[in-house]
Amino acid sequence: MTHIESEIREQATVIEALLNAEAANTQQIAAAINAFDPAFICIAARGTSDNAARYAQYLFATHARKMVALATPSVHTLYQSPPDLSRAVVIGISQSGQSDDVRQVVRDAKSQGALTVAITNDDASPLANESDHTIPLHAGAERSVAATKTYTTELTAAAMLITAVAGDVEGMQTLKLVPGWVQQTIDTAFADVPTFVERYRYMDRYAVIGRGYNYATAFEISLKIKELCYIAGEEYSEADFRHGPIALVQPGFPVMLVAPTGATFDRQRDLLNTMVEREAESLVISNDEGVRQVAHRAMALPNAPEWLSPIVAVIPGQVFAMSLAQARGLPLDKPRHLQKVTNTT
Amino acid sequence: MTHIESEIREQATVIEALLNAEAANTQQIAAAINAFDPAFICIAARGTSDNAARYAQYLFATHARKMVALATPSVHTLYQSPPDLSRAVVIGISQSGQSDDVRQVVRDAKSQGALTVAITNDDASPLANESDHTIPLHAGAERSVAATKTYTTELTAAAMLITAVAGDVEGMQTLKLVPGWVQQTIDTAFADVPTFVERYRYMDRYAVIGRGYNYATAFEISLKIKELCYIAGEEYSEADFRHGPIALVQPGFPVMLVAPTGATFDRQRDLLNTMVEREAESLVISNDEGVRQVAHRAMALPNAPEWLSPIVAVIPGQVFAMSLAQARGLPLDKPRHLQKVTNTT
Repeated sequence: MTHIESEIREQATVIEALLNAEAANTQQIAAAINAFDPAFICIAARGTSDNAARYAQYLFATHARKMVALATPSVHTLYQSPPDLSRAVVIGISQSGQSDDVRQVVRDAKSQGALTVAITNDDASPLANESDHTIPLHAGAERSVAATKTYTTELTAAAMLITAVAGDVEGMQTLKLVPGWVQQTIDTAFADVPTFVERYRYMDRYAVIGRGYNYATAFEISLKIKELCYIAGEEYSEADFRHGPIALVQPGFPVMLVAPTGATFDRQRDLLNTMVEREAESLVISNDEGVRQVAHRAMALPNAPEWLSPIVAVIPGQVFAMSLAQARGLPLDKPRHLQKVTNTT
Repeated sequence: MTHIESEIREQATVIEALLNAEAANTQQIAAAINAFDPAFICIAARGTSDNAARYAQYLFATHARKMVALATPSVHTLYQSPPDLSRAVVIGISQSGQSDDVRQVVRDAKSQGALTVAITNDDASPLANESDHTIPLHAGAERSVAATKTYTTELTAAAMLITAVAGDVEGMQTLKLVPGWVQQTIDTAFADVPTFVERYRYMDRYAVIGRGYNYATAFEISLKIKELCYIAGEEYSEADFRHGPIALVQPGFPVMLVAPTGATFDRQRDLLNTMVEREAESLVISNDEGVRQVAHRAMALPNAPEWLSPIVAVIPGQVFAMSLAQARGLPLDKPRHLQKVTNTT
């Protein structure tokens, strides 16, 4: 088995390990955050971890009423003119904890008096050492260059921290159901996706649309398909897509919609119907059977609440990217031009 | 002449009108912002205006040391759970001032006690009426569906406001040079771009890379090419590109680099050299003759300082998108599936 397949299949197990190991620690960090009373939250991350930051941005707003600013590392590194972060909690997310630019944001913030938190798979990493608090991911070594299990554990760590900051006891209970949903999604995706993936063997462009919590999912699926299949897809929120890029759609143009039920569902279903009218090729990731039947191809989700749906909704996308790379005869664990740790400034 | 061509050509004139008309008003708004002493700035915008917000995000950080959070309108509209913006200055940017979701962010912020500012081309619009302060763009009616002159006036309005907040008297003086640089760029682009644009008649994918202040430029050029040419390009920061999407590059893959001289130049030049090694097709937008000579095709810029370069660097991209649409036989002023005012929630 390739590294990436075994790492996708491990996700339920590592999420469960994270939930068990870090419950008390995330409560303590949440107490420190609430004592600090930040005016806002700043998150620094790159690549896959930046997509986890997008999820945290929505969840902090809706569940803990905190505004999240995503850091722009170049103002710290290249322009050497960091903004005032003294009234912020600053969270660095990095699988390896090595990323120079993420570390620089956290160091600048700390020197200004901000409270700093690292979310990383290596709790002995420089990022962890330089931060006031650390949430280790407990994902085990990730050998595939394309990140999968560190992404879903980053989402889970964010959800643990945010429910704790919000004092949302019911949410914390619901989190315990995530490993079961994740396992169900893995099983379904590995059973279904390979049966239809060859339809997309020669796909050379497409768009993937998410909204709200699943805006992050659209970005992450697009990144996996770029890394593994070398196909330049476009990721959009449903609203941004209507503001211009929808001009791209012509008959046969593939559009993947991440459409779990919840507050964003009607907008996504409406867009699906528009895509069907325009004779686009539609793929849907949803727990709703109605939209799954309207689309040309569909990937099923369990009935998780929308705020936790990104942890499961990315999985069919991971399996799709992996299976499509196989169908295209591409290397799975070491895509061309990529290294596991990318150091940028 | 098409609307879009005349609107691209008008940009020096309307920017000059804006600089003259709003100097005193932006000083007054800046004084109100400084009196409010915000912990951070939040900007709400969609489409082209969101790209102007990206520029403002970098400039607020480097020049006024203010962290900017880009609003996520769906937490206000679909989730109806807005974050705490009471310690923020909230800026809504909208050409028409009609956008429901941008208005909702501003209304929520105002009801929480935030200070609100509208940047809009219609100072009698709902957004202007609902905000504490307004900077009108003075761009005149924009008839082309693809926005050009309202984008560069939005950038200019942001630069006026941020230099005023920073008390940067030298920066305000430098702003007066912008109309001349803009006119020079327009003249050069209309003379040069049509001589080589047919080379890209059948381009069906590409990437456009900016960094720092010109991350916004990469997004905006990509949006123009999507809207006018229906080509799905990808926009990246140089750092994000190296974190995964660089896997897309194979011989002949077109990469456009926005590479003005300044703090980000070495990184962009290094990426250009990597692209040349990998036999990618390179297009460069730069005031540096060295990188222009290395690239397959180049578009020249005047020697504006890097923090103002986005106002000129987008112009060759606008002319490229317009000329390429002409070469492909596509309608310029009314692209398929698009309306001038897009209302999303």
